[in-house]
This record gives sequence, C-alpha cells and structure tokens, in this order.
Amino acid sequence: MDLIAETIAAIRPLDEAAMNAARAHQDRLTKPRGALGVLEELSVRLAGLAGACPPPMPEPAAVAIFAADHGVHAQGVTPWPQEVTGQMVANFLAGGAVVNAFARQTGADVRVIDIGVRTDLPAADGLIVRKAAHGTADLTREPAMTPGQVRAAVETGIEVARDLVAAGHRCLVTGDMGIANTTASAALIAAFTGRAPEEVTGYGTGVDEATHTRKVQVVRSALERAGLAGRTGGGVGSGSGERSGGSVGSGSGEPVGPLTVLAEVGGLEHAGIAGFVLGAAAARVPVVLDGVIAGAAALAAAALAPDVRGACVAGHRSAEPGHAAALSHLELRPLVDLELRLGEGTGALLALPLVQSAVRVLHEVATFDSAGVADKA
Amino acid sequence: MDLIAETIAAIRPLDEAAMNAARAHQDRLTKPRGALGVLEELSVRLAGLAGACPPPMPEPAAVAIFAADHGVHAQGVTPWPQEVTGQMVANFLAGGAVVNAFARQTGADVRVIDIGVRTDLPAADGLIVRKAAHGTADLTREPAMTPGQVRAAVETGIEVARDLVAAGHRCLVTGDMGIANTTASAALIAAFTGRAPEEVTGYGTGVDEATHTRKVQVVRSALERAGLAGRTGGGVGSGSGERSGGSVGSGSGEPVGPLTVLAEVGGLEHAGIAGFVLGAAAARVPVVLDGVIAGAAALAAAALAPDVRGACVAGHRSAEPGHAAALSHLELRPLVDLELRLGEGTGALLALPLVQSAVRVLHEVATFDSAGVADKA
Repeated sequence: MDLIAETIAAIRPLDEAAMNAARAHQDRLTKPRGALGVLEELSVRLAGLAGACPPPMPEPAAVAIFAADHGVHAQGVTPWPQEVTGQMVANFLAGGAVVNAFARQTGADVRVIDIGVRTDLPAADGLIVRKAAHGTADLTREPAMTPGQVRAAVETGIEVARDLVAAGHRCLVTGDMGIANTTASAALIAAFTGRAPEEVTGYGTGVDEATHTRKVQVVRSALERAGLAGRTGGGVGSGSGERSGGSVGSGSGEPVGPLTVLAEVGGLEHAGIAGFVLGAAAARVPVVLDGVIAGAAALAAAALAPDVRGACVAGHRSAEPGHAAALSHLELRPLVDLELRLGEGTGALLALPLVQSAVRVLHEVATFDSAGVADKA
Repeated sequence: MDLIAETIAAIRPLDEAAMNAARAHQDRLTKPRGALGVLEELSVRLAGLAGACPPPMPEPAAVAIFAADHGVHAQGVTPWPQEVTGQMVANFLAGGAVVNAFARQTGADVRVIDIGVRTDLPAADGLIVRKAAHGTADLTREPAMTPGQVRAAVETGIEVARDLVAAGHRCLVTGDMGIANTTASAALIAAFTGRAPEEVTGYGTGVDEATHTRKVQVVRSALERAGLAGRTGGGVGSGSGERSGGSVGSGSGEPVGPLTVLAEVGGLEHAGIAGFVLGAAAARVPVVLDGVIAGAAALAAAALAPDVRGACVAGHRSAEPGHAAALSHLELRPLVDLELRLGEGTGALLALPLVQSAVRVLHEVATFDSAGVADKA
C-alpha cells in the first residue's frame, strides 16, 4: 500500500466512549453545565480524537509553513511580484514575519517547507526542502500539477506531520506562503463545494476591483478547462477517495478524484497541507487550520477521508468569502473571527491558546465534590 | 478632591500622534496593509492609550476577581444557593476554578477581592478583604447600596487597579463572582442603555423558563422602584459624571448620576469593577473586560468618564443578551465569541493572548525594507 492510502486507512472515527467520558467530566466541574460553550464541545471532540479523557495537552505545537509558487501568477491576479514568496520564506527563517511573532507568543515551533518555490533557496535551519516542482503550471491553460507532483506533495505533507508528531509535538498548525494562492484556493473551494466562482473568490491580500474581476474570470476558466465547472451541491466525499473514483462529480458527469482536483486547479502548498491534515488525523493529533488556503486543502483531505474532520480545528474565519464556504462545507466553526487576511499560519496560531485552554479545563479544574462547592438546586 | 473625582480627572483621550505612528508602522511591516484586521486597529488604539509606539507589551497581566452577594437572591432569580459565592472564592484561592486554569495558561496573576460576600471568609494568600457591605440589599425593595457603600466599592476598585499597576502589571483583566449577579447586570444595562428589561435579561448560568420570566419581572420592578424605567435612547454620558448631575435621565425627568444608578440596582462587584476600569484608564493600562457583569460595570465607568473606553478591550461576547447591548453601547467589538456564560474573568483571559499578539506585532515584525521583501506593485 502506498503512503497516501496507508494514511487514509489509519484514520478512524472519533472515540464515542472517550467523548462520553469528557461530557460527564465537564458536568462535574465547578462551573454551570455548558458554560464554556464552544470550548466545551471542542474539549469533548479532542477527547474523542485522542481516545482518552482527558486527552493530552495540545502542546508543544508546531506550525508547518508550506511555501510554493503558482503559474497562474502570469494571469495578473495579484499586485505582488512572484519573488515575494521566496523573500517571505527568508523572512520566516530570520524570524521577522508575523507568524514568527505569534509563534513566539504561543511557544510554537516553526518549520518552513519549500514544497515548490520557483527559485532555489539557500539552505537554512528550519527549512525543509522538498520541492515537488518549481512552482505549478498555469491552471487556466493546463493542469497545475502532474499526477506525480500532486502525490509527491501530499506525501511530503504526511511525512512532515508524522515527523513532527514523532518529535513530540501534540498539536499541529497549518501555515502557507505562495503569491497568488488565494486564486487556486477559490478554484478548489468552488470544485469541492459546488459554489460559483464569484461566491468564493475574494480580494486576497488586497486587490483592486479590476484585478478581482479578472481573478473571478480566471477561476471560472480554470474550472471549465478542467471539467469541474457547473457542479451543484457538492459533498465532502465517501472516504474511499481516489480508489473508488472519488467524490467530486464533474460537469460532464464523470466523477473526478480529490487528487485530480488538486492537480487540476490546486497549488503545491494545498497538496502539502492536505497531506499534513491527513497525517495529523492518522496520528490522532489535532491540526489547527489557518485561513482560506488551509480550508481549501482541508476540503481535499476530507474528500479523501471524511473522518479527518474530527482532527481539524478551524482556527479562524478569514475575510475571504471562500473560507466561510469551505468551513461551512466541512461543518467546522471557527474559534477566532477578526477579519484577518494574512495567512502564514497567523490565524491558526492566534487560536492555539484557545485550543490549549479548552483541554486544560479537563486536566485542571476541580469538581463540585472535590472543591466542596454546592451544585445548583 | 476625592479619589473617584481625582481618577476621573486623570483619564485622557487617546494620543493621536502615537496612533498615527502606529498606523504608519503597521503599513511598513512585512504583510499586506490591514491584513491583521481587528488586531491592527487594537494595536493602534493601545499605542494611543500608552501615548507611545510601540506601546509596552501588555504583560504581565493580572485578573482581579471582585466577589459579592446580592440581596435580590431572595427573589428566586437563580437555582444556585447563595453560599456558592463564598465557596467559589475558596475554589479560586485553591486554584481549582476555570479562571485559575486559564490564568496559568496565560501567565496571569489572580487576585480575589471580597468586596461584599455575605459571610466572612478565612484569610488566605491572594484574598484582599475590602467588604463595602455584607452583600447588597434587595434591589426590588430598596436601593441595593447606600451612597457610602457604592463610593467605597468604587474606590476599592480604583485602588486595586492602582496597586496592580504599581506592582508592575501592564494589563488588567476583570473578573467577578456573585450568585444572582446577572440580574443586577441586566438592570444596570437597561438603565444605562435604555433597553427594555426583556431585551437584556438572559438565562444567566442556566435558569429555566419560569425563573427567566420572574427575572425579567424583577428587573422591571427594580427599575420602576428606582425611577429608572421607561427611558428611551440612553447615552454613555458627558464625562462629568456625578458632578454635573450625571448622564442617566430617569423616567420622571430628573437626571440620575451613574453612582446613583449603581447604588440603586447594581452590585458591589459592579461598583468595584467600575472603579477598576477607571483606575486602569487613569494609569493608561489596558483593561480586558470579561462578560455581562464587566459590561454593565463598564457602562457605569463610561458614564462617569467616557474616555475610559479607550482603555477597555472587550474580551468576549457572552451568551447573555444584555452583554451584546452593553458592548454595542460602548462601541466595543469583542475579540472572542464562543457562547461562553461562565464569568470569573474566563472570557477575558481567553482573549488576553490576542491582545498580547496584537501589540507584539509592533515590537517584533520586520519591515519591507529591513527584511528585503518587495512591496506590492
């Protein structure tokens, strides 16, 4: 069995017994029942993921920033020069970016994976070079990746997750860098959710109206070229992924597998993050998703293995309209909603302390009995 | 001049020059302009509060839990026995409550102020005994506090804030404990915002429908008894507070000062927290507000001194409907929105890392020039 199939096969549903134990424990703690709202539900889910109550504290955490370039940059979908992808990788490695500041705030380790930056970058501590290609092809003209490239990128993501867990990390955090990657994200989200390009294509890092109009048209062209346009409905998939023909129906009636969708209109970082999510879920370790790029990648992972959703924590909801569509399709509620549109893993790192607090309650809070506090009448 | 007037006089508007410097610095950082959304605005405001760019990091933080009992408990507004207030104080001092777990998560110090618990509590490390009364009177029958009690409680709050800042704390966090205190909160919010009792009275820690109906009626009776009912509109006040007659108009046409409103329908912890907010603002240190109790207290503080709002960070929006009304009146946007309804300071502590992250960006992130990253075209 290959690594992708093996990883998918290792992903299990949440453990009901551990979830029931967590619910019962929450009800004994010195607080009104349900008073921690969304965090209480999250603590129950993470018990189910770990198969234990309390689940391990989700720390130490590590953010993996998957960096890659995009052939669609040639279509004028962003005002940023393509060189910025590599320049920002250097900034991450030097500790100067926002993601670094937030990682220091939360004690998270930072790893940068060059999974497809166009230029070759100098070696550096913290840089993992696993190029599946030197950037993608232009998705308006041809598939963004070959089948071999997409598999290699997904496998890299799985391996990065596996290695971080093996090194003792108990919470994984997605990060990304890739000039033009909100365009590929919109195309993926449209393909996996069945939404129209204009519903899921946003202003990215801040494009003008003319560029936004062009971007919507680029997404529409890419979907049409790939035979992914005009779907209605959409669904997270059957869990059997590529092997049973997959879950995404095309406009022409033939089902298209999630890896094919990634290859047609995705980015190398989307494929890497999809693998990273699969790897986290297989290791039963929570993975905090960042913004629209992670949301698009998680749709691919969930189409391959629906139970990955049990491991996914939506860190935040970004300003990109496609992100809300992706989270809704994944049935994930974001923890933070502050109109962020930065990427890098920043939104997920802001949510990390909330995830840790949710689990900490199960570890540390006294019960009515142990504290000698009267329960309500 | 007395302590309250002196504190109000020390509260200044935000420093525009520091805010402009923060905006300009944010635009030089290696991220798209505005990409940090709400956190970017918060960093600018905290620069304005400190009068410096960057403002000091908001750490170490301290949460001050103001605990008190409520005479209105006799009206059957909650299923919890009144003894739970004191029992939970013991739990806070033993480190067993949710607020303690979240304080450990964030590195915040915990102080508990007995500002009016009905019973006398054993002395303990971390407990500050400053009883302004042994619980309030029943606000449906008479003013909850005397003018002397409310002033003493506000002064205690100011002193607690002042002492924490003198001890080196650079971020204050509000906490509260008081069985029945959502009832007094609803009455305060109705009085300060002009909303109807049924709009701002919620289910607290989880009351049944019959209790909720009674609670709304209790709030209505209290407002009518105090001559605070039937106001329309409402306003944060003129800044001159009690001295010019104050800002809250009564149904009978006579203006009523914010301290009088607190005395009529508030709680001792509300008065303490109002003072704490005033003290933080006078010291130009941010104060992260917890839920509906803090929201009600902040309305009183803002009626005394509108510029306190510059120091207030809305930690979260709770499930209580009155809280949203209070935040809207204060024009504060909550950082966290997770259907919490616990109190103690828990929602504010969950938001604390977000506040710290917002300021950290101004301290640590590289500029386009320093990092050699190209800006957008």
